[in-house]
Amino acid sequence: MTIRFGLLGAGRIGKVHARAISSDANARLVAVADAMAPAAEAISAAYGCDMRSIDAILSATDIDAVVICTPTDTHADLIEAFAKAGKAIFCEKPIDLSLARVKSCLEVVRKTKAVLMVGFNRRFDPHFKAVRAEIDKGTLGLVEMVTITSRDPGAPPLDYIGRSGGIFRDMTIHDFDMARFLLGEEVAEVSAMASVLVDPAIGKAGDSDSVQVMLKTATGKLALISNSRRATYGYDQRIEVHGSKGAAVAENQRPVSIEVATSAGYTRPPLHDFFMTRYTEAYAAEIAAFIAAVQGKAKAEPSGEDGLLALALAEAALKSVAEGRTVKMSEVAG
Amino acid sequence: MTIRFGLLGAGRIGKVHARAISSDANARLVAVADAMAPAAEAISAAYGCDMRSIDAILSATDIDAVVICTPTDTHADLIEAFAKAGKAIFCEKPIDLSLARVKSCLEVVRKTKAVLMVGFNRRFDPHFKAVRAEIDKGTLGLVEMVTITSRDPGAPPLDYIGRSGGIFRDMTIHDFDMARFLLGEEVAEVSAMASVLVDPAIGKAGDSDSVQVMLKTATGKLALISNSRRATYGYDQRIEVHGSKGAAVAENQRPVSIEVATSAGYTRPPLHDFFMTRYTEAYAAEIAAFIAAVQGKAKAEPSGEDGLLALALAEAALKSVAEGRTVKMSEVAG
Amino acid sequence: MTIRFGLLGAGRIGKVHARAISSDANARLVAVADAMAPAAEAISAAYGCDMRSIDAILSATDIDAVVICTPTDTHADLIEAFAKAGKAIFCEKPIDLSLARVKSCLEVVRKTKAVLMVGFNRRFDPHFKAVRAEIDKGTLGLVEMVTITSRDPGAPPLDYIGRSGGIFRDMTIHDFDMARFLLGEEVAEVSAMASVLVDPAIGKAGDSDSVQVMLKTATGKLALISNSRRATYGYDQRIEVHGSKGAAVAENQRPVSIEVATSAGYTRPPLHDFFMTRYTEAYAAEIAAFIAAVQGKAKAEPSGEDGLLALALAEAALKSVAEGRTVKMSEVAG
Amino acid sequence: MTIRFGLLGAGRIGKVHARAISSDANARLVAVADAMAPAAEAISAAYGCDMRSIDAILSATDIDAVVICTPTDTHADLIEAFAKAGKAIFCEKPIDLSLARVKSCLEVVRKTKAVLMVGFNRRFDPHFKAVRAEIDKGTLGLVEMVTITSRDPGAPPLDYIGRSGGIFRDMTIHDFDMARFLLGEEVAEVSAMASVLVDPAIGKAGDSDSVQVMLKTATGKLALISNSRRATYGYDQRIEVHGSKGAAVAENQRPVSIEVATSAGYTRPPLHDFFMTRYTEAYAAEIAAFIAAVQGKAKAEPSGEDGLLALALAEAALKSVAEGRTVKMSEVAG
Repeated sequence: MTIRFGLLGAGRIGKVHARAISSDANARLVAVADAMAPAAEAISAAYGCDMRSIDAILSATDIDAVVICTPTDTHADLIEAFAKAGKAIFCEKPIDLSLARVKSCLEVVRKTKAVLMVGFNRRFDPHFKAVRAEIDKGTLGLVEMVTITSRDPGAPPLDYIGRSGGIFRDMTIHDFDMARFLLGEEVAEVSAMASVLVDPAIGKAGDSDSVQVMLKTATGKLALISNSRRATYGYDQRIEVHGSKGAAVAENQRPVSIEVATSAGYTRPPLHDFFMTRYTEAYAAEIAAFIAAVQGKAKAEPSGEDGLLALALAEAALKSVAEGRTVKMSEVAG
Repeated sequence: MTIRFGLLGAGRIGKVHARAISSDANARLVAVADAMAPAAEAISAAYGCDMRSIDAILSATDIDAVVICTPTDTHADLIEAFAKAGKAIFCEKPIDLSLARVKSCLEVVRKTKAVLMVGFNRRFDPHFKAVRAEIDKGTLGLVEMVTITSRDPGAPPLDYIGRSGGIFRDMTIHDFDMARFLLGEEVAEVSAMASVLVDPAIGKAGDSDSVQVMLKTATGKLALISNSRRATYGYDQRIEVHGSKGAAVAENQRPVSIEVATSAGYTRPPLHDFFMTRYTEAYAAEIAAFIAAVQGKAKAEPSGEDGLLALALAEAALKSVAEGRTVKMSEVAG
Repeated sequence: MTIRFGLLGAGRIGKVHARAISSDANARLVAVADAMAPAAEAISAAYGCDMRSIDAILSATDIDAVVICTPTDTHADLIEAFAKAGKAIFCEKPIDLSLARVKSCLEVVRKTKAVLMVGFNRRFDPHFKAVRAEIDKGTLGLVEMVTITSRDPGAPPLDYIGRSGGIFRDMTIHDFDMARFLLGEEVAEVSAMASVLVDPAIGKAGDSDSVQVMLKTATGKLALISNSRRATYGYDQRIEVHGSKGAAVAENQRPVSIEVATSAGYTRPPLHDFFMTRYTEAYAAEIAAFIAAVQGKAKAEPSGEDGLLALALAEAALKSVAEGRTVKMSEVAG
Repeated sequence: MTIRFGLLGAGRIGKVHARAISSDANARLVAVADAMAPAAEAISAAYGCDMRSIDAILSATDIDAVVICTPTDTHADLIEAFAKAGKAIFCEKPIDLSLARVKSCLEVVRKTKAVLMVGFNRRFDPHFKAVRAEIDKGTLGLVEMVTITSRDPGAPPLDYIGRSGGIFRDMTIHDFDMARFLLGEEVAEVSAMASVLVDPAIGKAGDSDSVQVMLKTATGKLALISNSRRATYGYDQRIEVHGSKGAAVAENQRPVSIEVATSAGYTRPPLHDFFMTRYTEAYAAEIAAFIAAVQGKAKAEPSGEDGLLALALAEAALKSVAEGRTVKMSEVAG
């Protein structure tokens, strides 16, 4: 059963999904919608799909599922509309910057029984997935400590930062989801610290560019997150899980892995410099997992609830920074 | 300018090329030919191309180039026929098991001025290519010593071994090409040793399964090759270049690169277990290079001459083993 | 000028220092003192030194310097006595479990102008020192984030835990010193989380066995510390510094560094399983640095002040856990 | 039972052994002999031993064992003299440059039943030893292929090269011994290639500076050796064993093992730049093994016979280069 897709939004991440859909034997990209005609045309030309309006996709009978890659402030409305229209929905994170809005949106999803999956692509990275598999196999014993390092090669444009909801909701949110994915139980307490070390303009915009977060679950499992908007050596993405019987790490990935030895030492090339090349395999696996969910072969995961809980952790981190204290999740997710 | 392809041979390696052609924006797979209907049908179905006879492809006006993936003993005849028909030709290695036949075939190619490229895919591996790039940049100074390790996870079927021309012509031939690619000058002397350590049946079939070769160029540059038809830990493919200013290595590749630490130590998963997954990127880059050659944007390399010289090295290695001495290339390639 | 040593305390760490002193060309071990005769005898026999009482060493004219390896609660009194006696003093950490007592002790040292060095051996590890050297050279630009991982192969005996002052004062104190050493400026804020995951008996004894700490300096530099009393894979000791121009890591050390590849993957042996073998080189370099300080060739560093500040950080971490909030160093070190 | 040592020769390698003897709890350095007074004085001062003539050591009743570090052309005579004097003998490699002289010398050793151990220090390197231990444990199955890489940071002085017997007898001899140690059976055939790539003056002196050797045992096991008198990146010393069930490698060692990441990539420091720092642990373990042999607790290994066989392999390699053919060991060791 081939799943027929409509793509909403033809920007950077839209193109990633267009390619993933087109190269999946179980999927077909039927139509793309974008207010910016040239962006839609590019995808239409490359993958031979229609250009349609969002409304046309909403009422189309030849489309089973949509991938939402439009600006964040449209996500919740689009999810609700397409859920009511009976389409399966894959939505880029976050569902919304407001916890309340996410909750009301998920209420609609629940009522319509729509299939909804949220785009935490890193769960599908083969290396991170393999770490989780070791946990599931019991190799590590009981998980005790999780360490997540995530640093971007550079900061996004300032105008994006203004719309992003801040570093915790925009960047750390991936790590919050990863921490939940690896800890295997819900976070109970959050403490965070935030600094402006990369660019004073980010501070002026009311955001931070270097943050660290501690998490603790009800049974005492611990997690650390370290984020920076700067990494001269590439896209720094590592996870580490320490348990009662052992530990597992997924180290950084590089496009070319030679080593050159001279009198100056032994040098390997820098890491991937862009999340799209770093996570190529993850994006393909993510769409494949969504297709399986639409086909009824698997649960839609990460779910809307996963999106909500990661956002709540971002909320708690912000509160912790503002109040200089450890915040209980019951205060936020209440 | 999209290049329109005919694929001759729909077996294992034929499928690899069908996928590479189909996913290249500058190419289109027009037709596949295979005496075994089901194999051709599978490719036809997967990539929406015609099934035709070889003769039909030969005379087709909608085909610019062919990829020859048929059994080795048909290669030379097909190259000649398609060269005369004015098609560009990509041929899997080897052109033929007989040096004389390769030479007469290349004579035809020369006369017809056909574009001919030979399938030494490893030159296109991003990691091996990066080592060569360091040589070209001068980082390593003058190349002095090349070491190539190449071990297969397991031996091919015995009936294939009978047809293969022996391990030097079938397996080491890739390493001979790689040695030439890295040494940057022609080999002058060859010494080889061959053993049967993996499977006595290979010995009974008149072949070896574990071999090592030393090469020397006219200026004294040295190379070592180590081959085995067995490697429990995966597809072992490494190169190393040592020069007057430094050295470079391309280490093995693995599909998943986590590390798990327990009281038994630190363990990383095995390597790729198959040449197709190991060299996925190389196959795609190889077809892209061929397309560029057909489009006149680049030289067709590795050339027919490269195919000839690698085969001559295999010939010399066989002679060295048989006669227990160092063989000069002038004796073989004469 | 050979420095003549008296060793106070012939236990586990006393033996380490006896060996380091004996193998240093600029030092001579003259006498050892320990209430437990057999311990003192063992060192006397191995290194050919006298056995004397602490009082005899205090008044000896043939002793220039002492190394204090007695129980923690005797450190401050001994430092004061030997400072007044005009001996140079190397004291194992901590000076005392009470900040007030440390301060009064350092007051005596200041007045007597005694040479005092505190045993934060990790500063002398060649790998950690090399990371610090990269900071000093400017390779990393401005330091922004420090990450310190420190996990013991196993918990100490419960009765030791009772006397240790708790994990922050006993174990994390090394990481607090390392954080200061790498951050290059004083910590302003501390937030910590503590769990009992390894052994409930440690919890019953009022201590924790798994902790994590966040630090922040006045200019916003950040640091993370992760500690566990358990690591099945050996003595886990890593540091990482991320700066505006680059990053540096010192990875774990193992006594044997082979790699074995089988169908199960690629395995390296576990790490050192004991701090003494892990830090062999550090202990030797530490004593050499103390000797240089006694000879007047270098400053005595880490100093008593360094000991005080690391202890104050432990104090702040405890307070943070108790009160569930970020603690300012001004509250503690006041 | 403390073994009392006389040291013959106070040069570079003599100093290494003096330190190793002095730091071993089971040994005592009683006397040193060297025609060059300042060299002997330095060791006498550093370790508190006598200076004596070789003759005095020969007849001394307070000396159980000697370490021979004099020039190569004195080795055989000294071994014979001390064997007849009833002393245990540790002799640096080689025993002599002439196979015939080595044989007659070993005849004397046999008759006198003297304990004789030859200085192939690499067998005692903890990493190489661990590879051998994996073979002995059966982890690798049957050994099939051994690869040994050994490159010096720089060539020795030309006048040393003249006396050295050539690169195969001086440098490759260590690798011949290592190959025998790892193959677990005797070499039957040798083929070698030799070049002058580093320094033409070495060629003028009648020697080579870059060589490669292939070995084969009677049952078909294979080995490769690669040697260069140049390596800009440090002292390059690696071994690799490939067997029917798996493989093991011992990679290079470096004094400092940090990694620094910048926009130029990830860089680790160069290797050890000197065999003495690279093999510090090996030299200590080697003397410990000799002491155990003198105490009758273990066999003296590597034996004089091991010294003879490694030299015979060097002889065969020279013959192979000279005659351009594979040489059978029966031709040389006859």
